[in-house]
Amino acid sequence: MASDFYGEILAPSGAYKYFINGDWKESASGKSVAIVNPSTRQTAYNVQACTQAEVNEMFEISRSSQKQWAQTPLWKRAELLKKAATLLREHALPIASCLVTEIAKPSRDSMTEVIRSADLLDYTAEEGVRVLGQGKILNSDSFPGNGRNKLCLVSKVALGVVLAIPPFNYPVNLAVSKIGPALMAGNVVVLKPPTQGVVAGLHMAQCFHKAGFPKGVLNVITGKGSEIGDFLTTHPSVNCISFTGGDTGISISKKAGMVPLQMELGGKDVCIVCEDANLDLAAKHIVKGGFSYSGQRCTAVKLVLVHDKVADELVSKIVPQVQKLSVGMPENDCDITPVISETSANFIQGLVLDAKEKGAKFLTEFKREGNLLWPTLLDHVTPAMRLAWEEPFGPVLPIVRVQTVEQAIEHCNKNNIALQGCVFTQDINRAIMISDAMETGTVQINAAPARGPDHFPFQGFRDSGIGSQGITNSLEMMVKTKSTVINLEAESYAMG
Amino acid sequence: MASDFYGEILAPSGAYKYFINGDWKESASGKSVAIVNPSTRQTAYNVQACTQAEVNEMFEISRSSQKQWAQTPLWKRAELLKKAATLLREHALPIASCLVTEIAKPSRDSMTEVIRSADLLDYTAEEGVRVLGQGKILNSDSFPGNGRNKLCLVSKVALGVVLAIPPFNYPVNLAVSKIGPALMAGNVVVLKPPTQGVVAGLHMAQCFHKAGFPKGVLNVITGKGSEIGDFLTTHPSVNCISFTGGDTGISISKKAGMVPLQMELGGKDVCIVCEDANLDLAAKHIVKGGFSYSGQRCTAVKLVLVHDKVADELVSKIVPQVQKLSVGMPENDCDITPVISETSANFIQGLVLDAKEKGAKFLTEFKREGNLLWPTLLDHVTPAMRLAWEEPFGPVLPIVRVQTVEQAIEHCNKNNIALQGCVFTQDINRAIMISDAMETGTVQINAAPARGPDHFPFQGFRDSGIGSQGITNSLEMMVKTKSTVINLEAESYAMG
Amino acid sequence: MASDFYGEILAPSGAYKYFINGDWKESASGKSVAIVNPSTRQTAYNVQACTQAEVNEMFEISRSSQKQWAQTPLWKRAELLKKAATLLREHALPIASCLVTEIAKPSRDSMTEVIRSADLLDYTAEEGVRVLGQGKILNSDSFPGNGRNKLCLVSKVALGVVLAIPPFNYPVNLAVSKIGPALMAGNVVVLKPPTQGVVAGLHMAQCFHKAGFPKGVLNVITGKGSEIGDFLTTHPSVNCISFTGGDTGISISKKAGMVPLQMELGGKDVCIVCEDANLDLAAKHIVKGGFSYSGQRCTAVKLVLVHDKVADELVSKIVPQVQKLSVGMPENDCDITPVISETSANFIQGLVLDAKEKGAKFLTEFKREGNLLWPTLLDHVTPAMRLAWEEPFGPVLPIVRVQTVEQAIEHCNKNNIALQGCVFTQDINRAIMISDAMETGTVQINAAPARGPDHFPFQGFRDSGIGSQGITNSLEMMVKTKSTVINLEAESYAMG
Amino acid sequence: MASDFYGEILAPSGAYKYFINGDWKESASGKSVAIVNPSTRQTAYNVQACTQAEVNEMFEISRSSQKQWAQTPLWKRAELLKKAATLLREHALPIASCLVTEIAKPSRDSMTEVIRSADLLDYTAEEGVRVLGQGKILNSDSFPGNGRNKLCLVSKVALGVVLAIPPFNYPVNLAVSKIGPALMAGNVVVLKPPTQGVVAGLHMAQCFHKAGFPKGVLNVITGKGSEIGDFLTTHPSVNCISFTGGDTGISISKKAGMVPLQMELGGKDVCIVCEDANLDLAAKHIVKGGFSYSGQRCTAVKLVLVHDKVADELVSKIVPQVQKLSVGMPENDCDITPVISETSANFIQGLVLDAKEKGAKFLTEFKREGNLLWPTLLDHVTPAMRLAWEEPFGPVLPIVRVQTVEQAIEHCNKNNIALQGCVFTQDINRAIMISDAMETGTVQINAAPARGPDHFPFQGFRDSGIGSQGITNSLEMMVKTKSTVINLEAESYAMG
Repeated sequence: MASDFYGEILAPSGAYKYFINGDWKESASGKSVAIVNPSTRQTAYNVQACTQAEVNEMFEISRSSQKQWAQTPLWKRAELLKKAATLLREHALPIASCLVTEIAKPSRDSMTEVIRSADLLDYTAEEGVRVLGQGKILNSDSFPGNGRNKLCLVSKVALGVVLAIPPFNYPVNLAVSKIGPALMAGNVVVLKPPTQGVVAGLHMAQCFHKAGFPKGVLNVITGKGSEIGDFLTTHPSVNCISFTGGDTGISISKKAGMVPLQMELGGKDVCIVCEDANLDLAAKHIVKGGFSYSGQRCTAVKLVLVHDKVADELVSKIVPQVQKLSVGMPENDCDITPVISETSANFIQGLVLDAKEKGAKFLTEFKREGNLLWPTLLDHVTPAMRLAWEEPFGPVLPIVRVQTVEQAIEHCNKNNIALQGCVFTQDINRAIMISDAMETGTVQINAAPARGPDHFPFQGFRDSGIGSQGITNSLEMMVKTKSTVINLEAESYAMG
Repeated sequence: MASDFYGEILAPSGAYKYFINGDWKESASGKSVAIVNPSTRQTAYNVQACTQAEVNEMFEISRSSQKQWAQTPLWKRAELLKKAATLLREHALPIASCLVTEIAKPSRDSMTEVIRSADLLDYTAEEGVRVLGQGKILNSDSFPGNGRNKLCLVSKVALGVVLAIPPFNYPVNLAVSKIGPALMAGNVVVLKPPTQGVVAGLHMAQCFHKAGFPKGVLNVITGKGSEIGDFLTTHPSVNCISFTGGDTGISISKKAGMVPLQMELGGKDVCIVCEDANLDLAAKHIVKGGFSYSGQRCTAVKLVLVHDKVADELVSKIVPQVQKLSVGMPENDCDITPVISETSANFIQGLVLDAKEKGAKFLTEFKREGNLLWPTLLDHVTPAMRLAWEEPFGPVLPIVRVQTVEQAIEHCNKNNIALQGCVFTQDINRAIMISDAMETGTVQINAAPARGPDHFPFQGFRDSGIGSQGITNSLEMMVKTKSTVINLEAESYAMG
Repeated sequence: MASDFYGEILAPSGAYKYFINGDWKESASGKSVAIVNPSTRQTAYNVQACTQAEVNEMFEISRSSQKQWAQTPLWKRAELLKKAATLLREHALPIASCLVTEIAKPSRDSMTEVIRSADLLDYTAEEGVRVLGQGKILNSDSFPGNGRNKLCLVSKVALGVVLAIPPFNYPVNLAVSKIGPALMAGNVVVLKPPTQGVVAGLHMAQCFHKAGFPKGVLNVITGKGSEIGDFLTTHPSVNCISFTGGDTGISISKKAGMVPLQMELGGKDVCIVCEDANLDLAAKHIVKGGFSYSGQRCTAVKLVLVHDKVADELVSKIVPQVQKLSVGMPENDCDITPVISETSANFIQGLVLDAKEKGAKFLTEFKREGNLLWPTLLDHVTPAMRLAWEEPFGPVLPIVRVQTVEQAIEHCNKNNIALQGCVFTQDINRAIMISDAMETGTVQINAAPARGPDHFPFQGFRDSGIGSQGITNSLEMMVKTKSTVINLEAESYAMG
Repeated sequence: MASDFYGEILAPSGAYKYFINGDWKESASGKSVAIVNPSTRQTAYNVQACTQAEVNEMFEISRSSQKQWAQTPLWKRAELLKKAATLLREHALPIASCLVTEIAKPSRDSMTEVIRSADLLDYTAEEGVRVLGQGKILNSDSFPGNGRNKLCLVSKVALGVVLAIPPFNYPVNLAVSKIGPALMAGNVVVLKPPTQGVVAGLHMAQCFHKAGFPKGVLNVITGKGSEIGDFLTTHPSVNCISFTGGDTGISISKKAGMVPLQMELGGKDVCIVCEDANLDLAAKHIVKGGFSYSGQRCTAVKLVLVHDKVADELVSKIVPQVQKLSVGMPENDCDITPVISETSANFIQGLVLDAKEKGAKFLTEFKREGNLLWPTLLDHVTPAMRLAWEEPFGPVLPIVRVQTVEQAIEHCNKNNIALQGCVFTQDINRAIMISDAMETGTVQINAAPARGPDHFPFQGFRDSGIGSQGITNSLEMMVKTKSTVINLEAESYAMG
């Protein structure tokens, strides 16, 4: 029974417990944090408001658990991860249901997020066996003046304690994409789930717990950012921070000590549509890319830069598809659902009003009911408007018309949140030369930006982040290099 | 003085010596082989007709020199190769002059061949330092059921004696592309130069000698194929055969023992021109690709498969360029020079006559004077004609018109000598999908086939050969894997 | 039911069928080959005596099935392999039972072989996803004189039809170690099981069939070597031969055409025991290494080279352990069971008699009943005895006493069947320097030779074979390199 | 003439200029910073005291120069680096002479530093051609659910502007080890040399200038740390900081924004001597490792942890060698020369006095004249003494006696400045298990810690730093990953 499976994570008080050293516990604070349903704007759940002392305890436990975990055979680590994946699949429904409630994600997409997370774990397990099971040998006689009497064995060792902070929009998937590689690499994890999505995160953690990971290897803290936020990110026991979110990440970076950072802070992903583009293809991708999960995705299309000669035709193909999007509640699997918070809705509205004042042409009408915003398509957006540069993180898509490809590239490269971009063209020279010229972490040729497949690298440039993600890259990011040099008493060459 | 530099390689008898154990020697046979100038059809040079006993001696010396050479630091091997490169550049002119005389290669191309060979050696030296200076460590605990108590150190060790047999068309370049990687990898080399080109090869060997390689590490045998050909290729001391040439390679393969083979046996390289191709670009590449060194190149365009809709236009762009090619002697740097031998000229003529009989349309007139053939462009070639399938290795280019891309791909894949191919199209989808579908070792998108840059892989499929060349691939081909497993008394994990 | 699962593979005639194009069929020859139980020396099974026409048909089907299979997503190929692994585990008992009957392998070892084969397939599936899912890009501007206008995409493509010929001693494991990588890489397989072990092989094939592989992707031929042996190995449709066995492999190599060869032809694996060795450890490994499966293993310890100073002590530790080995029938899980055939028993007896005549000291008594030979330990073996150089492939272990380590290395390197070797010493300098000096494919430091873990490379030197095995190496061996060069109209550099 | 070569870098005022945009200039500040000779404690040189405005200008120029530089073919970048190496060798003497004067490095070591730097540049050039000339292709069909319709091309692109801050002890070598990889990777560099060593750094920069690098690609700023230190390290135009030095690095890390950090902050490198060690070897390495350049090396042996059973014998072998060290001025090539500053001498003296008070046994006498300290060997040092944990960075070597190897490892792992360590033992199991257990970036088995050969990785753990150095690792550290995904209209598999 799923209820049994998840039973222990809920305290009699009705607040969800936090997870430390293999146990579900209530905070000594006696306080809780309320989680609001974005659709109803009512409190849906409560979680523990943990204290700084509990954070300290968690790090202490983490550190003391790490050495043993790092001495676990790779295939055993992999086996545990795959077991967690199996449990995620078997107990997906309650997690998906939290996502619907906490983050207003359409129900089908919520299930997809959980299942995709299980796939990611399976792949991470097998990838980790390989990335970590292999090192390099360097011979000394490559370097002028040296004979072969030194053998340098280069291996990858765990960093220690990884602090994982996923964002609200994929609280499960972007948790496992941090936890999976961290654990495979022999690290232990302190997970701080996002406020919205925290309960889904706690359910997910239970799948790891039940999979049989040793105590202390994965821990989950909950609480108020004001109380434990900076305390966590500047804690001396942290050996790596893997954060996905907004520009909070920049201030975390500035305060953090000498630890590897994996930050993903959003993207103002542009879509360049060339004269010779397949416009049907482009329109399809722009609508899906711009409005999935109401545009609340780092890889959502955030700005269309279309060549003037084909702009009218492109627009004529986009508009009807936007008009067909269903608007409503996540439980009904609507395309467009309430955005994450009133703050967010207000921010988006501000961007739209700014564009309106500065003369953008509305191809669809802007409309708002509570946190629910109707999909809004704006044409003739200009660089003077905030929407040309800022991320709405909502169902609003601005179109800028350009006279040349160079103008589009220049706009792309001035934008500071350079996660992904895409270009639609059929021409092989143009495709590669524009892709080379776009200074974003990833360029999609003839498709909308996308994080997956999850083994592809994923990285932002400039203020969009630091470090590369994707399963393999995350594994490599969460280790450090250790060298052992065998100094022989005489030169020796392997013969055969 | 160049004359001093090369002085010792010529015997008082007027015949060139062969090179063994660091010495230039005359064969005990007392006989020589005459080398005919293809342009004049007169004997230009004489080389030693070595005996089987001398072959045996050469292998014995090679084997006994190899162990010490394999224990030379990588940077020292590299230093010697770079010294040989420097000498090749400094003493290039006499070598190029041999090429003009022996293989009727235009004089400027002859110099280019030598200089390019020096670049290749430099790159090989530095690449070898890296490819060979590095191994892998595998941990036992990647595999289910194992703890980390076994550490497998994987390294690359020399094969032993490499038999290098280059072809007449690049007797210097395709010698160093075998010798360089072989020596860097710790092998010793027995070089059997082609009959035409042998004297250039002997001059080249002198640059290695003067560079200071240890005795016995590079040896050069000359003689009659009937006397020492099979004897060489089936010799039990051979640990690797690197051969470039015609279909002799297939019979070598069938007789050879259990040794790694690197064979490159020519290519019937097709050029597919799509409806949307840049026809100016295609025409330029087809003419250069088809007629450079009179078509005597493995990577020459050997067949054009053009879409019917653009065939007339393509042809109209090719014909005038072919007509402009200069025809004459290599000393005068003519574009089209005599083919390598009368046998070859007769064979080419046979292919042309077959096409004529079967109705091919001659866009330029076929003409022959001795070994000199005028550049011949044939349109409306059909699968029934030999020229649709066989390599002329001469200045003859057949054009087949196709109704669909699929038809072109099918023709390409039926051809058994599948070295390279090329496709001209501007469309990114079409480019990649056709390239994927063409079953040839390399597909060039929007350029003629080419062997270089020399660090790119180079390989033929089906009867075109086995093994991959290119500097890195040749280095990897000329080593074998050796593993050392350290079995520890207990599990041990590198910590950090 | 297991009986249902395997039911279709047995013809009403009582002979096992062969497997072609997804069907189990009887040969048109109407003939069968009898399989003799080595323990009873009675016929245990019958299999189809297939004809050359059936071989031709099988290759035709294979070739026509290959292209579609090579266009199957990697994860789907992996899924099918893992399904086959699951079925092997679920239906292991009947296969193991064949092994007991056909090759007299102790019953527990027989089960282990099947289970280990399933593990190997799982690992191969995931490894293949990675090895084959990744290619290289080479930029042209690495090479002097070139700008970055060429992008070389290097990928690995299937060879085509792989002919897999496993040996009698691991007819299941050494079949899947060929089939798994071959299929993952997009090849199709024609399997020719060994005479002894063929019925186990047919059962194993059924697990692949039931896993749902497409028709024609795996095919199994049976029959008389005299009828179809050479016909198979020289067939023009063969694109790769993966053979494990005896020195037949050398003649296969000599006749085979221009196809990649992966041959493993046995090993005269020496064990060097140094003065400072841990003698208890050495003795334990020598006994296990020398007598497991009655010494019928390529990686069995075949010769002990012990330093004279510790020889008596070592011998005193080995003898009692050898005396404790149980001798009898495989059904009873005896340590020593009948060797594979009367021919083999006679050959072994010949080696022992030769040693006796030449003065070897028998530490245990040689005894024979039918194919059952008692474990025989011979001391003071000299280079004049055949046992110093030849593989008994039976429960006979010769010991040579040496005065120096150099003498031991020299013996090791004179031996032509150089698969593995091992050295026992505690000293780090000595361990590595001896390992470097031993010219065998693998050197085990402080453990007996071993093929596993199966992701380690495995290769023989000199007459022991060609090509490297191990899961990753086999995957890389069963592909060829294909390059696609994108030629851009201008230089272009990826910017960020 | 060397004087001509370096002539332009000195202003008529007698102060050395700084280098910006290809020009040597005087600061608008009109001020200079005096550089004191540690031996004489007199001002030896003056350099420009640059202003924050000049820092801003330098970054502006750097940024605007970077894009063009990143579009330079790799082989051209390599050619320029190799030209700089050649000039360094040709004009080494004046640079070495600065080192003698500014940092009191023995004259022979000073020459070695310059020559070794040239070797490093040559290797970096060729390594960069390879590391950067190659990318990866990932196929989409590795991941469950995907067909092969996405091709992910992964390449490495420059970070932008690298801020390079080398330390006083290797002001040339640790400058080029940052500049070389940075430039090869397409970055531009702002170099801030250390106060002591700055003039050597300016001379070195002239070699790059004369080699022909484009303007603005390498710039060198000089000035007061209090004025421009934080301003440099927190400048928004910095895209990477490569710093070697003391624990200033930690505060730089804490203030730095979201930029990749390569920090090397020193090492308390322990030397573990086991019971079975080769004590002659250990003693030799300890003396050389502990006292070269008066112990002012990150990789100096900073603490000996010797097993009690062999401590007396080890000490008896060390003492006479220490007594033989010559003490005096760098111009005379003495072994022990004045330490870098009075502050440093005082700090070292403090450590020695602390040890004296707490009962350490002085095996040699502590003596000081100005900045010149006599080599001091302390036995029976205990964990209560500061010398057990702190880096003297002077000619003082503490010995701690341990009862067990575990105790030594524990001490090693409690030490927070975990750069390198070494262990002396002859036993292969012990060697590897201790090396695995020592939580330092590099462990040397049977040799003193060492940074070279320079292609080996070099990294510190815990407070010793972040990021890995060594030529290859630095190249990889100074790029970021960019992906281009080609989305095809249909699945396509490369066939062959």
